[in-house]
Amino acid sequence: MNLNVEGRPVLSEANGRPLTPYKGVGQHKPTGRSSGPPIKTCAQFPPDGNKCVENLKEALRNAGLKDGMIVSTHHHFRNGDLVAEQLFMAAKELGVRGLVWFPSAVFPCHDPLIRFIEDGTIHHIEGSLNGPLGAYASQGKMPGLGVLRSHGSRYRALQDGDLRVDIAVVAAPSCDHFGNMTGASGPSACGVLGFAVADAQFADHVIAITDNLVDFPCVPWQIAGNHVDQVVVAGRIGDPEQIVSGTTLVTRSPERLRIAKLAAAFVSHAGILKDGWSYQAGAGGTSLAFTIFAAEKMRRQGVKASFVRGGSTKVVVDMLEEGLTPVILDGQTFDLEGVRSVRENPGHIMTSPFTSYNYHGKGNIASMLDVAMLGATEVDLDFNANVVSHSDGQMLHGIGGWQDALFSKCTILAVPTFRNRVPIIRESLTTLCGPGELIDVVVTERGIAINPKRTDLLDAVQGSSLPLRTLGELKAESDQLCGGSGKLFQPAGKPVGVVTWVDGTALDTLYQIS
Amino acid sequence: MNLNVEGRPVLSEANGRPLTPYKGVGQHKPTGRSSGPPIKTCAQFPPDGNKCVENLKEALRNAGLKDGMIVSTHHHFRNGDLVAEQLFMAAKELGVRGLVWFPSAVFPCHDPLIRFIEDGTIHHIEGSLNGPLGAYASQGKMPGLGVLRSHGSRYRALQDGDLRVDIAVVAAPSCDHFGNMTGASGPSACGVLGFAVADAQFADHVIAITDNLVDFPCVPWQIAGNHVDQVVVAGRIGDPEQIVSGTTLVTRSPERLRIAKLAAAFVSHAGILKDGWSYQAGAGGTSLAFTIFAAEKMRRQGVKASFVRGGSTKVVVDMLEEGLTPVILDGQTFDLEGVRSVRENPGHIMTSPFTSYNYHGKGNIASMLDVAMLGATEVDLDFNANVVSHSDGQMLHGIGGWQDALFSKCTILAVPTFRNRVPIIRESLTTLCGPGELIDVVVTERGIAINPKRTDLLDAVQGSSLPLRTLGELKAESDQLCGGSGKLFQPAGKPVGVVTWVDGTALDTLYQIS
Repeated sequence: MNLNVEGRPVLSEANGRPLTPYKGVGQHKPTGRSSGPPIKTCAQFPPDGNKCVENLKEALRNAGLKDGMIVSTHHHFRNGDLVAEQLFMAAKELGVRGLVWFPSAVFPCHDPLIRFIEDGTIHHIEGSLNGPLGAYASQGKMPGLGVLRSHGSRYRALQDGDLRVDIAVVAAPSCDHFGNMTGASGPSACGVLGFAVADAQFADHVIAITDNLVDFPCVPWQIAGNHVDQVVVAGRIGDPEQIVSGTTLVTRSPERLRIAKLAAAFVSHAGILKDGWSYQAGAGGTSLAFTIFAAEKMRRQGVKASFVRGGSTKVVVDMLEEGLTPVILDGQTFDLEGVRSVRENPGHIMTSPFTSYNYHGKGNIASMLDVAMLGATEVDLDFNANVVSHSDGQMLHGIGGWQDALFSKCTILAVPTFRNRVPIIRESLTTLCGPGELIDVVVTERGIAINPKRTDLLDAVQGSSLPLRTLGELKAESDQLCGGSGKLFQPAGKPVGVVTWVDGTALDTLYQIS
Repeated sequence: MNLNVEGRPVLSEANGRPLTPYKGVGQHKPTGRSSGPPIKTCAQFPPDGNKCVENLKEALRNAGLKDGMIVSTHHHFRNGDLVAEQLFMAAKELGVRGLVWFPSAVFPCHDPLIRFIEDGTIHHIEGSLNGPLGAYASQGKMPGLGVLRSHGSRYRALQDGDLRVDIAVVAAPSCDHFGNMTGASGPSACGVLGFAVADAQFADHVIAITDNLVDFPCVPWQIAGNHVDQVVVAGRIGDPEQIVSGTTLVTRSPERLRIAKLAAAFVSHAGILKDGWSYQAGAGGTSLAFTIFAAEKMRRQGVKASFVRGGSTKVVVDMLEEGLTPVILDGQTFDLEGVRSVRENPGHIMTSPFTSYNYHGKGNIASMLDVAMLGATEVDLDFNANVVSHSDGQMLHGIGGWQDALFSKCTILAVPTFRNRVPIIRESLTTLCGPGELIDVVVTERGIAINPKRTDLLDAVQGSSLPLRTLGELKAESDQLCGGSGKLFQPAGKPVGVVTWVDGTALDTLYQIS
C-alpha cells in the first residue's frame, strides 16, 4: 500500500486496475481522450426502429453476456427497484458467473442480491454499499473490492475509460420500441433518469427495460433511443410505493429542527441568502426543514433564487411553483410531487452527473452553487469528513453526490454532535471521504463552526447573534456528554473497499471488521 | 483512382486521409470505438462557471489556434450567418494560415469568404459547396478537395474519428456564461441547434459565441455548457432577416403545384397516408405544397400522423397546433413560426443528426419515416439520383440530409422532367449521390414512376387514377420536348471533390470544369 498526500494508506490497484494515490484537490491532471462505445451501424438494426425482444434473458443472450462481464443498472427507482434482481436471475439462468455489478447506488431492496454473490453469479459490486450489503462486504465476505465512487466520479470513470460497462440495463418508466425513454410518466415513474446517462452513452451494449411501452416517439425523451441496442417489455420494473414516497417528511426531531434553523440563520446572516442565490439540499428531514426555513426568509425578505438544485421534493417544487426560484436543476426525484413537476413544469430541468458533477469536464454545476447542505458521519478538527462508514469501520452509507457537492461556494455539514452516544467530531476519521479545505461550515445543535480558512465568512457573521464555536469547543462538549471521545478505529482486517476521490485517485481504504 | 461497386472512379485518399470505395448500401462494416474529445478537468475552469472572454480573437488565441487546424461552424443561421466571417477575420488578424473550414453547410452569405481562400487563411472547405463558392471550387481554384458529407455523415465522421475538429465555434442565439445555450430565443433566434451537437460533443475545443448573454441557467438548454470551453459575447452573430424568413412561401408554379398534388395523391392511393403515418418534407415550395395537400387529405379522412419531421415551417407548425400530429421532430427551423413553436410547444422536439441521421448508430429516425419527399438534379433509369451537381458538372447544391433521408420506407423524388431545357431523367448521372435501390418513386409533372423493385407499391396503386409511367416513358417525352437527351458530362479536369456515402465510403468524384 502507498501513503497518499493525506497520509492515508491506499492500495496500488483495485480489482485488477491500477490506482493512483490522491494528490490533493485539483492536483491530478488527466490525460488522453474520452472513451467511446463501439461504433455500430444502422445496417444491424431494424429499419422500422422496433428493437423489442422477448425478455431480459433473450436480450442478455443477444448482447453476448458472458462470465466476468461488467453489468450496470441505475438507482432512480431507489428502494422500489425490481430490475437488478431480474437481471441477475436471468444471468444465473443463462449459467453466467463472476459478473461485476456496477450500480449507480444500492438500496435495502437489493439486500436479497447477496445470494448471487454467494452462488458466484456476481463476483463483486463495484460501488458503495450499505445496510446488509455493506455489512456483508465489511465482513470480508465479498470477493473483490468495493470501489466507492461519487455520482460524478462514476460518470467520470466511464468517460475516462477507467472501466467499461459491457452491458447496461436501463430501467425506463416510459419507453418506445426504439428505446427513447423518460422517467416522467408511467406506472413506475421516477422523475429524472440522469444517473443512467453515463451507462447509455458509454456502455458497449444498452438494454432498455420498461413496463410501459408507449408509441413512438416517446417525447420529450430524457435518453434517446439511439443509445439503445434492445428494448425489453417486462411485467414490472419498479414498485411505485417504494420508488418515491407520497410525501417526504420534514424532521420532527427538535435537535434536527434546531440544526436546520441554525443553518438557515447562518446563510442569512452571512449575506448568502440574497437575490439570485442558489443552493442544494437533499431529501433528508433536516435538509427539508432547511429549505422550509430558507424559503420563509426569502418570502420575508423578497428574495428569489436563480436556481435550486434537486434532489427534488414537494418543498422544492412548491418554491418553483410559488416563483421563489425559476428553475430546479434536478438530479434525482424524491417524491411524487417531484415526478409531477418534472412532467409539468418547463423550469424543472433534468440534469445528469455529466452536467452537475463530472470533475473531468469543463466545469460543472456543483461548483456554482452558493450553498450545499450535506450530512456526515464524522468530522475531524481540520474539517475533513467521513460519509461512508460508521466509527466502527463498517460501510454504512452510499457516497452519492456528497464529494461532488463539496465544491459549492459554501459547503455546510449539518450534523448532530453525537449519535447513539458516539461523538461525530473526532480526533481522526475512520474513513476520509472529503478534504477539509472544501468544507466551510459545520452546523450542529450546539453551535456553528466556521472553517478558519474562510475568513470572509467569519468576517461576514462577526457581531451576529449566531452561536459561533470552534470545532474543538464542540468536540470537548460532546465528548463530555458522551463520556469520552470514543474509540478510534484501528484497521486490523484486510482491505475490502477503496474510497476514490472525484478525479479517480485513491483517497482512503475500507477494512474488514470483525 | 479505384472503381467502386457502382463503377464510379473514386480517389484513394482525400486531403491526406484514406478513402474506402463505396461497397453498396449497408455493406461497409465499421470497426473500433467512437471518438472522444480530450479529457479536461474542472481545475482548469472557473468554479463560478463564468467562461466569458473578451472577444473571438482572444478565445481563438486561448484555444491555441494554429496553422492547418480544422475549425467548424454550424449553419442554423442559414443565409444570416455573421459568425464564419468574424472567425476567419480573427484568424487572419492572428496571422494563422491554411485552416480547414468544416461548416455543416454554406450559404450565399459565405461567398465573401473566397477572399480567405485567396489570401491563404483558409486552405479548403471540407463540405458541400454551392453558388459562387461551388463555382470557385468547380473551377479548380480551391486547394484541397471538397469532401461532401450528408448531415448524418458529418456527425458520423466526427463520431468515427474520420477527422477531428480542433476548434468549434458554436453560434448561440441565447447563452449563459457557462455556455448553456438554446436557439429558441434571442434576437438571432434560429430554432433548433442540432447541427452543432456533433461539434460540441467531439471538437477538441468549443467556443460559444452569442449576442444574447442570459442569466445562468439558460433553460432548457439545447446544448449543455459542459461541452463549452469559452464563451464570447459578440455584437451580432446573425442577421434576423436572413436567418429565417417571416413566411416561407408555398410554390405558385402550376407545374410544381401539380407535382405536389400528385405526390399527395400517390401517398393517399398507396395507402401510406393513414392513421399513425409519418413523413418528412423540406422547406421548398413544392414540399410545402405537398404538406398542405396532405394535411387537407388528413382532415378529410380524419387521419392523424404519429410524427412529422422538420425542417419546420409554419405549415408544419399549423399541423401540430391543429392536432394533425402530436409531435414535430425538428432538425432545422426554417421560419419564424417554427422558432416560436420550438419555444412554445412541448411537442416540438429538437433532434440532431445523431438522433435523425447518423448511419453508424443504433438505428435512426430517417428509416422509420413512412415518406420522405426530396428533390434531385438528375435521375437515371435505375432510379439512381444526383443532388449536388448540375448536368454541366458544377457543384450546385448542398448535399444536406438528402442521402440520410433516402432510408425512409418510401422515398419520393419530386422533380420536374426538365429545367431550363435540360432533361432531368438521364442515361447516366453527372454525379452519383443516391443509389436507386433506396429511391422508390419519382413524381413529375408528367406522371409518376414507381421503382419496379417496389412491387408492393405497384400493387397498392393498381387500378388507381394516378398517371403511372415508367422512367423510360418520362425520359422519352422530356427528351423530345427539350430537343434531345442533353449532353452527358465527360470528366476532363482534375478531381475537385468527393461525394461520400452515409457510411463514409467514396461514392463519386466531382471534377474541375472549364
